[in-house]
Amino acid sequence: MDQVKYLLDEDRLPTAWYNIAADLPTPPPPPLHPVTGQPIGPADLAPLFPMALIMQEVSTERHIEIPEEVRSIYRQWRPTPLYRARRLERALDTPAKIYYKYEGVSPAGSHKPNTAVPQAYYNKQEGVKRIITETGAGQWGSSLALAGSWFGIEIVVYMVKVSYQQKPYRRALMENVGATVIASPSPTTNAGRAILASTPDSTGSLGIAISEAVEVAAQDPDARYALGSVLNHVLLHQTVIGLEAQAQLEMAGDYPDIIVGATGGGSNFAGITFPFIGAKLRGGRDVRIVAVEPAACPSLTKGRYAYDYGDTARMAPMVKMHTLGHTFVPSGFHAGGLRYHGMSPMVSHLVQLGHIEPTAMQQLETFAAGVQFSRAEGIVPAPEANHAVAGAIREALRCKETGESRTILFNLCGHGHFDMQAYMDYHAGRLHDFEYSDEEVAMALAGLPSVGA
Amino acid sequence: MDQVKYLLDEDRLPTAWYNIAADLPTPPPPPLHPVTGQPIGPADLAPLFPMALIMQEVSTERHIEIPEEVRSIYRQWRPTPLYRARRLERALDTPAKIYYKYEGVSPAGSHKPNTAVPQAYYNKQEGVKRIITETGAGQWGSSLALAGSWFGIEIVVYMVKVSYQQKPYRRALMENVGATVIASPSPTTNAGRAILASTPDSTGSLGIAISEAVEVAAQDPDARYALGSVLNHVLLHQTVIGLEAQAQLEMAGDYPDIIVGATGGGSNFAGITFPFIGAKLRGGRDVRIVAVEPAACPSLTKGRYAYDYGDTARMAPMVKMHTLGHTFVPSGFHAGGLRYHGMSPMVSHLVQLGHIEPTAMQQLETFAAGVQFSRAEGIVPAPEANHAVAGAIREALRCKETGESRTILFNLCGHGHFDMQAYMDYHAGRLHDFEYSDEEVAMALAGLPSVGA
Repeated sequence: MDQVKYLLDEDRLPTAWYNIAADLPTPPPPPLHPVTGQPIGPADLAPLFPMALIMQEVSTERHIEIPEEVRSIYRQWRPTPLYRARRLERALDTPAKIYYKYEGVSPAGSHKPNTAVPQAYYNKQEGVKRIITETGAGQWGSSLALAGSWFGIEIVVYMVKVSYQQKPYRRALMENVGATVIASPSPTTNAGRAILASTPDSTGSLGIAISEAVEVAAQDPDARYALGSVLNHVLLHQTVIGLEAQAQLEMAGDYPDIIVGATGGGSNFAGITFPFIGAKLRGGRDVRIVAVEPAACPSLTKGRYAYDYGDTARMAPMVKMHTLGHTFVPSGFHAGGLRYHGMSPMVSHLVQLGHIEPTAMQQLETFAAGVQFSRAEGIVPAPEANHAVAGAIREALRCKETGESRTILFNLCGHGHFDMQAYMDYHAGRLHDFEYSDEEVAMALAGLPSVGA
Repeated sequence: MDQVKYLLDEDRLPTAWYNIAADLPTPPPPPLHPVTGQPIGPADLAPLFPMALIMQEVSTERHIEIPEEVRSIYRQWRPTPLYRARRLERALDTPAKIYYKYEGVSPAGSHKPNTAVPQAYYNKQEGVKRIITETGAGQWGSSLALAGSWFGIEIVVYMVKVSYQQKPYRRALMENVGATVIASPSPTTNAGRAILASTPDSTGSLGIAISEAVEVAAQDPDARYALGSVLNHVLLHQTVIGLEAQAQLEMAGDYPDIIVGATGGGSNFAGITFPFIGAKLRGGRDVRIVAVEPAACPSLTKGRYAYDYGDTARMAPMVKMHTLGHTFVPSGFHAGGLRYHGMSPMVSHLVQLGHIEPTAMQQLETFAAGVQFSRAEGIVPAPEANHAVAGAIREALRCKETGESRTILFNLCGHGHFDMQAYMDYHAGRLHDFEYSDEEVAMALAGLPSVGA
């Protein structure tokens, strides 16, 4: 028995995103101004984001309409397929049913265009000429580069230097559609120059790249800043994934007992889980939600739930989140999209409310899972997605032990075509596991601001 | 106005492949034994292929049923989308309508799994334990590697050495699913050793790699050989592309005036065009068929229509085809999948019958087209596919000149995620055009066999 594919008709592409803020028993703590430490309002964010996105960021409406212009572009690759992974089930010899939603069919090969397209759209609506952003592994940057080329907006990407050097093909993908890509830290900003002065051979971090992008955007009245994860409006846009999955599982006559997601900033995780968590918050069926993060960047499992800056240079607002500290530079590991020092405040809040079980996984287990998945399902997952695959395999093997049949759903957020070097390193035995000691984590957390602690 | 996508319901996945041999006014000349020069029969091919594929090779039945086991795997990514390229039309400011079928959604990122899956299936049915093949750029090898992992067949791939060295990620894709990849020419075969003795620094060619694979397969009773293009049964399997496109254009209420395809061995070209040529041969509507080949490997436009060996070491049968000679080693250019010295005998025959217009295109024009296409449509085409894109753009610009609206269809046979180095080279000005002189072609053709000339 091979895979089963569940495809939604195009007319069932969601017409609205789902906003979990509408269903929370208590709201998450507000963001604070990086200098005054006071709660910030929409006006404070206006230099960075178009007003439509700021209003989405603070909205408590349950459904936010997807503009027809955005749906028209979504239709290029959406609704994405939901697969029943029968070949993987057979390979694992498990009584569990494993479903995965596949976001690698997008033109950028990941879930990131789900938010890149509406972000570019709203910026265009408000007359923005260029968008400045950062990227780690390059999935977000290449998605925004594409969206920019469609809407006629100039895109400037600060790319974490280690990725800029190690992932020239992701960079080429951005440059090929006309984006400007700058290795971060760079001499083009105060934030970058300060880092280069103190650490000339810095390989960069998402926190540093965010500082550079925010600095440039704030100084240019024709420019705005864009972020590919973490923020409420970004998570909101990703809920198309879970909304489609709900309809597809209904087609399959099934409902998940367990949903597994990989967490970096939280957007792909929120995309697949929030519609299900929302249904549960409104009195619907219970579902276990498992968040898998890399042991080498363990914000949920080893970080502190505290106010912290979103960026290294402390220009972005402070938000309450699980964080390893804004100066934290994660050790080298291959899931570049999961290397953020913090976690989406909304995901953090739901962890605090007890709706999400965080777990950390070692790199070697995630790659072993990715290889097993490739052989069974034929799709090579991105290293980020391997965390979800590995989490789902763990749950399926637990079912095998107990003999229970459970329905497991996960999001395969992207393919690994740009990450084959990582697989080559894995097969050659050049990858290794990594664990931070409590002392190292304590040191990284020492720089947390005292505000709101 | 954005792209329009035409999706077929899964229950409209073709149930049979289309065999153009049924509709030919005259059959193509038969293949000849490489030693005796006599027409060969099914028994001669038995050491190389399973009998089911040999029977397809010589069949004149119009419809050949697709086994349910194959359809079940096809459904993972088929039916593939047909797009109306409205953004590209707008960028070109053309009155033409441009449609493209997109085969890059397959797990290997190209059209090659359409034939890799049935080839692995029929081999499995006949108890074959391992399949030996060759690959140029790696699209075929990675597709067969996947199919092998699904059917539990060992796959050994002789990869043209220049690609083995320059495309480590395609190789990693094959090895990741358990295939063995050997750089060709290699010391593992007589054919390889002979080449290495005379040309120690040979970078290989498809003709040499075929010789090595055929030699190994012929000597191992548990093994068979597989080819990813050229042969009738391979082209047959690819007709799912054109059959789906016919149904999708019907949905769109349209019919192509012009179909453009890229030609290397001929399989993706046949896949999109044969169902339409067949309809015309049976008295249906006329359609111009344009075959675009690289100027650096111009078998259709500069080669001779003559009997030639399919491989360099003259172990494969002789077939009548447009050829540059079996010892021809094409100059370095980036569309590795289009570097075969000959052309499918069936495509060659249809050229002779006047149903296909061949044209050669320079590398720089194809990359310029690929970049323009990327920016408009969001998909980076493989360098092979760029030839079809460039051909379609030429036709669309001709419509702009004449003011005529024509409906153009082409096959976007694969994405370029593994070919970003080529795009980087293009943007950096490191690629160049290439043309063979008549003398060079005459020299290459001097080694043609005299049989059947």
